[in-house]
Amino acid sequence: MSVFQIDNDFITRLKSLIAEGRTARIQQLLYDVHYADLAEIFTLLSSQESTHLIKILDSNKTADALAEIDEDLRETLLQNLSAEEIAEEIQELDTDDAADLIAELPDALQEDVISAIEDDTYVEDLRELLAYDDNSAGGLMAKELVKVQEDLSVLKCINTIRKQAQDVTRVHSIYVVDKKNCLKGRLSLKDLITANNKAIVNDIYIPKVDYVTVDTPGEEVAKVMSKYDLEAIPVVDDKKRLLGRITIDDIVDLIKEEAEKDYQLAAGIASDVEADDTIFALSRARLPWLFLGLLGGLGSVFILKDFETIMALPELRNLFFYTPLIAAMAGNVGVQSSAIIVQGLANDIVKGSLLNRLVKEVGLSLFNGLILAVLLILFGFIIQQELLLSLTIAGAMMGVIVVAALIGTFVPIVLEKRGIDPAIATGPFITTCNDIFGIFLFFYIAKLALGF
Amino acid sequence: MSVFQIDNDFITRLKSLIAEGRTARIQQLLYDVHYADLAEIFTLLSSQESTHLIKILDSNKTADALAEIDEDLRETLLQNLSAEEIAEEIQELDTDDAADLIAELPDALQEDVISAIEDDTYVEDLRELLAYDDNSAGGLMAKELVKVQEDLSVLKCINTIRKQAQDVTRVHSIYVVDKKNCLKGRLSLKDLITANNKAIVNDIYIPKVDYVTVDTPGEEVAKVMSKYDLEAIPVVDDKKRLLGRITIDDIVDLIKEEAEKDYQLAAGIASDVEADDTIFALSRARLPWLFLGLLGGLGSVFILKDFETIMALPELRNLFFYTPLIAAMAGNVGVQSSAIIVQGLANDIVKGSLLNRLVKEVGLSLFNGLILAVLLILFGFIIQQELLLSLTIAGAMMGVIVVAALIGTFVPIVLEKRGIDPAIATGPFITTCNDIFGIFLFFYIAKLALGF
Repeated sequence: MSVFQIDNDFITRLKSLIAEGRTARIQQLLYDVHYADLAEIFTLLSSQESTHLIKILDSNKTADALAEIDEDLRETLLQNLSAEEIAEEIQELDTDDAADLIAELPDALQEDVISAIEDDTYVEDLRELLAYDDNSAGGLMAKELVKVQEDLSVLKCINTIRKQAQDVTRVHSIYVVDKKNCLKGRLSLKDLITANNKAIVNDIYIPKVDYVTVDTPGEEVAKVMSKYDLEAIPVVDDKKRLLGRITIDDIVDLIKEEAEKDYQLAAGIASDVEADDTIFALSRARLPWLFLGLLGGLGSVFILKDFETIMALPELRNLFFYTPLIAAMAGNVGVQSSAIIVQGLANDIVKGSLLNRLVKEVGLSLFNGLILAVLLILFGFIIQQELLLSLTIAGAMMGVIVVAALIGTFVPIVLEKRGIDPAIATGPFITTCNDIFGIFLFFYIAKLALGF
Repeated sequence: MSVFQIDNDFITRLKSLIAEGRTARIQQLLYDVHYADLAEIFTLLSSQESTHLIKILDSNKTADALAEIDEDLRETLLQNLSAEEIAEEIQELDTDDAADLIAELPDALQEDVISAIEDDTYVEDLRELLAYDDNSAGGLMAKELVKVQEDLSVLKCINTIRKQAQDVTRVHSIYVVDKKNCLKGRLSLKDLITANNKAIVNDIYIPKVDYVTVDTPGEEVAKVMSKYDLEAIPVVDDKKRLLGRITIDDIVDLIKEEAEKDYQLAAGIASDVEADDTIFALSRARLPWLFLGLLGGLGSVFILKDFETIMALPELRNLFFYTPLIAAMAGNVGVQSSAIIVQGLANDIVKGSLLNRLVKEVGLSLFNGLILAVLLILFGFIIQQELLLSLTIAGAMMGVIVVAALIGTFVPIVLEKRGIDPAIATGPFITTCNDIFGIFLFFYIAKLALGF
């Protein structure tokens, strides 16, 4: 599929060419390489070797590869370059990638790099983009776009587009603006190809155009673009003046990042880490949730201690053997309920009132609980456990399952209403709450039923 | 952003217009509606009301809305339509959506719908697409594309494109083929706009073109398209003959579906369900994992029963109070480790040998375990627990954490190597294994240390 096969042989060969300093041979070997492949190559070389490649290859290619790699690796590689060298790379990028890259640099270096960039308009665009919030439409957009004024003839329009198109990696839509740069509509390339040369833009443009304002959150932009199957969307200010555009490839990255973040939150990983990160970075992401689990576990110690007396009663001490089962059920049911709610909230499909939702979860968990309770009673028969004890355990477990489902449903909805990411609720948070609550409820119900 | 605000008022008004049968008024009201908005409207109306809209609105719009909605809702709505009516809708769709829609119909209806479609070429395309595996490039691609032969002049080429472009929703690339329909390269629209009319395709086309073969798995297609930031990719057979193309909007949907599936697997939900599904569908997805949890819990009953004798020893029975803590730690650590590995595998960033990976996890979990162990010993001081017991509990917990991390790392890697989706390992599977194993290990280590 790809022209390049990046295998061990290739990397070994490249490493020895770098060691031997055979610049011309390396340039020839990597002449045709896609920047995404070059980015992959960077991850397989040492940082010295990668820096060497950045210095001897065309910035045109290395810049995009730099924009593509993981932030940690980028930081390492950029440390080996001077402000002028970084500026040279950055100038080759579209403004959105350039601004992201500059924003990552240490504050002191940022100004040096910007002043080393020659093109004044480009610098002005960068300064504008750097001022927007990272996770807003402004932070996602690029200044590069193709626009024409509404009063142009199609022929003049094509000339204008030809000029602008040279700066734009991919032309998705041609935006139509009025004299004040306010967005009026769009001109699809397909329409332009099939249009009569004598027409005027005003006659043929499509006034209906989706757009987002510069302060729209990134997630909202992703939702609009994926709902309406858009490949690019224009970004405007509060006066509808055209400021930039966002392309679908950035949205694909955003969707993947959001999904990874939610997945990690559900698994109890607090910040964006990867398998290749350092033990310290991984610990920082994992310890907070483990600490929460520890607190929950210590809470359970107190609850169980409260029922210590029944350890002396052979017919009741069996209850203690069921604590892992109860904790597992409470945790699993809670995570299931919250995961479904979190996804429903993300896709706007959680409709109806909170009460309806809770009633449905009660029905669902009663149904599931009943089936599991029957199995538990059967198990009691097999191990010749006293029927009353089995019934009590099964009944208490049903109670725990219902309450766990309610907590799992309630917590994400409440978090969402308070503007907190509900994804945080799935995983260790719900598991820990439900563990404690489930164990307490289990023993409390048993106490009521068996009268100890 | 969107022209339409679908609020309660709008839906109430639409419902009453439908009830009053005011067809012309409804057509006028929905004249400008985007198909994605119409899809949302369908989810807010009763199935009778939606069916009514499908019958009175232009199929051009309703067909795309039908393709957009959830499979369950689509099934309900299509049941209200005759084979001829379904065919009328389907004909308006691009071949990829049309084939997906037909594939969902009951077998008996499929043939009726296909025979009711008039366009023979379209039917032929549909039959071809229906033969491919759902989750392959063939199952994702559409037959609609724009292609030109390499020996055409640019002027003739533009005429050819004009004709073909009328059938294609969005023109991304113009593919260049030889006389045998073999893919030679591509012609970007931008290049075509800026090209000299007298040139020949052969002079200006870009021979470097990414493509996938028809049997490439969907996930692989998504990886290639997002790695190379492609908005469309051509699909070829084993002789490189151009068969169709896949566009990025389908890939965005695929990425979102995959992410939801992984998230649900991690949360212990076995099949793709949504908050609005029936209690039965939700139970079918949730019960298998709960059943697994039940089995694990019952396994723990036996393990704990084995240590029943120490309940009579006041200084040792405290161990039982720590079982929820141990189970929570084993579960949380296991899920964290497996989540990082699963994501690493999905992004191809798990490099180096299995042994290296396991060594790193041991280091990481020893470090985390040590911090948690110190906290546990402090807790022991506070509750005035005997030091030897506290040390034993803390040490055993560290052992459990290390083993849980190893299991969490090992299992997904082994699953991946055997061709099983490693995502299945994160969540209840790892949690349940680690619960049992952790509790056993905890008591076993305590037994060795305290000599009971």
